[in-house]
This record gives sequence, structure tokens and C-alpha cells, in this order.
Amino acid sequence: MFEFRIEATDGDARAGCLSTPHGEIPTPVFAPVGTQATVKSLTPRQLEEIGTTLVLANTYHLYLRPGDERIARLGGLHKFMNWNKPLLTDSGGFQVFSLAQISQIDEEGVTFKSHVDGSLQRLTPEKSIAIQENLGADIIMAFDQCPPPYDREINERAVIRTHAWAERCLRAKKRSDQALFGIVQGGIFEDLRTKSAEFIASLDFPGNAIGGLSVGETKEEMLRILDLTNQLLPRNKPRYLMGVGTPFDIVQGVARGIDIFDCVLPTRLARHTTALRRKDRLNLTNAIYAEDPLPIAEDCQCYTCQNFSRAYLRHLILAKEMLAATLLSIHNLYTLIKLTQEIRQAILEKTFHSLLEEFAEP
Amino acid sequence: MFEFRIEATDGDARAGCLSTPHGEIPTPVFAPVGTQATVKSLTPRQLEEIGTTLVLANTYHLYLRPGDERIARLGGLHKFMNWNKPLLTDSGGFQVFSLAQISQIDEEGVTFKSHVDGSLQRLTPEKSIAIQENLGADIIMAFDQCPPPYDREINERAVIRTHAWAERCLRAKKRSDQALFGIVQGGIFEDLRTKSAEFIASLDFPGNAIGGLSVGETKEEMLRILDLTNQLLPRNKPRYLMGVGTPFDIVQGVARGIDIFDCVLPTRLARHTTALRRKDRLNLTNAIYAEDPLPIAEDCQCYTCQNFSRAYLRHLILAKEMLAATLLSIHNLYTLIKLTQEIRQAILEKTFHSLLEEFAEP
Repeated sequence: MFEFRIEATDGDARAGCLSTPHGEIPTPVFAPVGTQATVKSLTPRQLEEIGTTLVLANTYHLYLRPGDERIARLGGLHKFMNWNKPLLTDSGGFQVFSLAQISQIDEEGVTFKSHVDGSLQRLTPEKSIAIQENLGADIIMAFDQCPPPYDREINERAVIRTHAWAERCLRAKKRSDQALFGIVQGGIFEDLRTKSAEFIASLDFPGNAIGGLSVGETKEEMLRILDLTNQLLPRNKPRYLMGVGTPFDIVQGVARGIDIFDCVLPTRLARHTTALRRKDRLNLTNAIYAEDPLPIAEDCQCYTCQNFSRAYLRHLILAKEMLAATLLSIHNLYTLIKLTQEIRQAILEKTFHSLLEEFAEP
Repeated sequence: MFEFRIEATDGDARAGCLSTPHGEIPTPVFAPVGTQATVKSLTPRQLEEIGTTLVLANTYHLYLRPGDERIARLGGLHKFMNWNKPLLTDSGGFQVFSLAQISQIDEEGVTFKSHVDGSLQRLTPEKSIAIQENLGADIIMAFDQCPPPYDREINERAVIRTHAWAERCLRAKKRSDQALFGIVQGGIFEDLRTKSAEFIASLDFPGNAIGGLSVGETKEEMLRILDLTNQLLPRNKPRYLMGVGTPFDIVQGVARGIDIFDCVLPTRLARHTTALRRKDRLNLTNAIYAEDPLPIAEDCQCYTCQNFSRAYLRHLILAKEMLAATLLSIHNLYTLIKLTQEIRQAILEKTFHSLLEEFAEP
């Protein structure tokens, strides 16, 4: 049901295809984030039109609202949000540690306050898997602890805990139509990352993720850790760099063996008036765009660039019109998805080095 | 360039077709409102998909932001907002009198404060036409005064002023690719409405509008005025009931010779969590919909009803997701546009009386 087929390599970069119960995901792939069972401001049809093949939804948010059991009674997350292609849910770990007001962390799990109604909630590895089984995504994630990257002592403990939780997630998992991915932690510390990658690899997950990056460390540190995990994680399984990133991050990640990316960046920038381009960004509130008849990017084939000027987008932003977020989200997501498609083609044609040169600098 | 062809009548109801430089408008027609050069939360493609043939934009708003001269320099409103079908702009009269902080009204025009930057602005009949010529809609409206419906003295003066301004608008108009419609005023007073309809009819506009209704009067009063204007306005020209309405208003308006409707109701309700149906409304925040797998309306063919449950829409609303407004706007507009299409078919088939019976009560 889950097959990962590598079709071509170019250096350590891979062009592959991941089969799931809801269809195939050509890799490298960028997954838009649909935190609350919607990629903000876009319909599923618009997502399909820009070439989306995988959407990420957040377990933490959906557990609190509308509730995973409710979604299960309504037929699962695919049906609920009307997304019939592959879905991935994270474990809730990252959100609990970054968003929630935590009242207790112990070896068993984490107790925290709901941001929706202030109620006390508890997530454990077993609970995270149960929620993700109720949601029913194609790819689900092990419950992990994602600490700040520079604190050695906390990262040491987080790695031990993440490993114990990974084993418990494997034991808790019941559904055979979901692929559970393990997560490597260890902050910026090479020995911890090595230990974590080796341990997670040993558990023989059908896919492996690298967590705890792009959370405050430098680009050099991130790439150093990716060089390391590239050597340690099994080559025949998909590798997922969580919460990353920019065009630079994606190209440099692929060069280090990464197959899957997700990030809120394109949709968040869109809601904050910024257009992503391959090599730069436009802040469309800038007065220089007031009468600019050009699209965001002249060579872009997205619906937004084919039909609307910078002047119109700037007007929508200044007039606080919702359509601004929709049109910018379409463009920003298209830009990253198109980039992964180009990367894939380049790997198939063994010309990936030219993209790597183009994106040598952040 | 502007031909109004009546294809069939059933009682006083008419099925027709209005030709414009940007295409034909089958009538009766409901026009979604795109106040700031966007129908809130929808792309032009989504508007086309629900069968929109005419969009209204607001002169008052676009004059203040981004400015009609800017839109003209960018190629006109059709190009600016990427709507290549017929467009109608109102005159700014209604908005000035209902939204702006007015500092002076005289026979020449109205001076008011901009809601955008507080600057002092002035609209006159000539200025309104100049702005509408810069915007370039297919149908433009005479600058009128729309007073509260029950004050006889103010309505007497407003009718005199509206008539003088209508003549000045006709004289000011320069473009031949725009149809200028006159507007009947007179509040709830039959003698004033009679006087106004006769005068406006005498000016031989290519289309005539009824203003100042659905602004506080009762449904009975509205229908009484429509019965009157139905007798007085030329039958061979399109009649436009401004700012109306509900399914009841549309069916009852058509029965009284109306061809064109516009209203913010469907999109405003959508942004306030309410779904329009043929005969009732659903407030989707209601807890009874929390696990309701049905669409808003089971027999509705819109994108929203074909793909999403009430439970999902309620979740989007509670989670404050923008997609809620988009999906509800699609459904609400589709409901009214579909109703006008059904009305048109019924007139062609001489079965309009059954719709009239269905919508006998508000």
C-alpha cells in the first residue's frame, strides 16, 4: 500500500514516487499546510489547480477543534475537508511545545491548556496515534519532543524521550492503511543527531523525518545536520524535512537527500502581503506597485499572475479585501510546488547541479 | 451597442436579453456586488462558475481608493479586476448619503469626508459621470439623492434635485460605449413616485432604475411602489430595482416588471455565517449542525453543496477560517442566480405563476 520508488538520482538528490491509499506523490514534494482542515483561504479545487499532491493538517488543532472523534464520525479527514489526495498529519508534538501553555511534561506525555476553551488536555504517544487514526491521513507522525535547538541538556533529554515515544507509537498503531514516520531530533548537536538518526533508522519506519530544524538555528547549522542525516537515514525510504521552507531550503534539502517538505511560509507570507518569487520577495504594500501593470512574476503560469497586476493586488491589500490572501496564497504555493517539479525534472535529466548553483545563497 | 430584447412575457414578468459591449445579459438577472473591485472572497473564475453575468461595483469606494484615474491608467475596471463580462457602476449617490460624513448638500452636489483618509471630497452629477467614464463599466447610473423613505419634505426636495441631476448627467456623458440609466426616487409617496417615474421616463434613458427601496419601508409599501412604476416606466427598456434583494423580493419584483437586481445580502450573510436557501436561512454556527453531514441544501448544485457538509462549514466558521466566507458566498450567490435562471425559464414557458405562488410570502 505504501511503496517508495526512486526513479532517478543526481548526486544525493532523488526523484521518486510515494504510493499511498489516496494516490501517488511524485517527489521531491512540497506540502501546503492546512492547519485546521483547510489551507487558509483556498478551496481544494484551487489547491489541485496549482499542482498540490500532499496536504498537511495539524493534529493538535483538529484534536481541540472540531475533535478527532467528530471527524471520524463524519467519515474521516479526507471526506471532512474534501481533499481526496494524500494527507499527512503531524503528531501534535511540535504544536504542544511551541503553542500551548504546558502545565506538565513527564515520560508519559504532556499536559497542556487548550487554546480554544482553556480546558486541561493531555497528549501521549498513544493518544497522538489514536487521534491520527481517527483523522485517517495517509501519512502519520510519531509523537516527539521538539526543544529549542541550542540547549544541550534539554536536547539530550528530548532525544531519549522522543526515542521511547517513537517505540510506543509503533506499538500503539493499529491501522494498516496509514504509514507512520519516525522523527529524528537532537538540536544542533551532531552526536545527538547521529544517535537519534541511528536509533530512528533502526526502528524500520516506512519513512523518516527530521524535526527540530528551521526553529532558530543558522542555515549553516541546518545544512550541517542535513549532511549528517543524509548519511545515516536509510536511502530506500522517504525522508521528510519538517516545517521547511524557502526556495533555498528546498533546493539545498533535496541536495541532501530530502524528499518531502512542508511549511506555513507561503500562505503566512500571503496573508501578510508578501509575494514569494524564486529568488526574492515583493512586499506588495509598497507604493512603487501602485500603478504597476505587471504580474508578481512575469514568467509565472499561476492563476494570479496570468490574470492580475501588482497594482490590483496592492489595492486589494490596502482595501483589506480577503481576495488578496487567496490570490497571494495561490501564487506563493504555486511558486514552491513549481520549484519542486523543476527540481524533479532536473534530477531525472541529471541537471540538478544547475539549480544547486542558482540557489547557492539563501 | 445596447439592445434590450424581450423574448417572452408572462403577465408583467419579462424574459429578455440586454446586449452590452462586454456580452449579453439574459434577464431577469441578479448582479453580485463587488464594492471595491472584488466580490468579497471570490475570484472572477468562481463568479463565472456560479453563472454570474453582471457585476456591480461602487463608484464611491473606487473613487476614494484606488482612484478612478488610476484605474483608467491601468486600462479600466474590467481589466483591473479581471472581469471581462458586463459591469455596472452605481453613481456614488447612495453611498454618499448613507456612508459618508456629509458636510454640505446643495443643488450643485455633495461635499463629504473620505472614510479612507478623512480628506474633503465633492461629488456632483458631472463628477460622478466623469468617474464612471474612467471606470468604464457597461452600465452607469445617474447621480441621485436617496433619502429616508418616510420624510415627505425631504423626499419632495430629493425628487426635484434627482431630476435636475439626471438631466445634468445626460449632458455630461461623453462615452458612447456605456449605457446611462436614470433613477426614480420619491420614497413611499405615490404622487412623488408617479411624478418621478414620468419625468425619468421622459428623458429617454436606455434603461431605468428604481432607487430608494428596501431602505426601511415595509414589503407592502415596496410592492405598492413597484406596481406603480411598472405602469409608468417604458416597457421596452430594462428596469433595475437597486439594492434588492431576497428570493421573495426578486420573484415579486419580476412580477412587477423588474429585469435587473443587485444586493450585498448574499455575500454579507455569507460573511456572517448565514446560508441562504430558496425559502429559509440556516445559521451555521448553530450546534445542531456540529455533526450534520448534509450540504446546506440537498438539491443545490453549487460547488459548496456538492463537496462540503454543514458540519465542515460550521467548523470553518468557529475556527474563523476565511474559507467559510468563500464557500458560503459561492452558495448564497448561486442560490439567487439560479433562482433568476428558473424565473427566466418559467416566463419562457408561461409557468411563472407557480413561482409566484411559491414565493407569495416574505
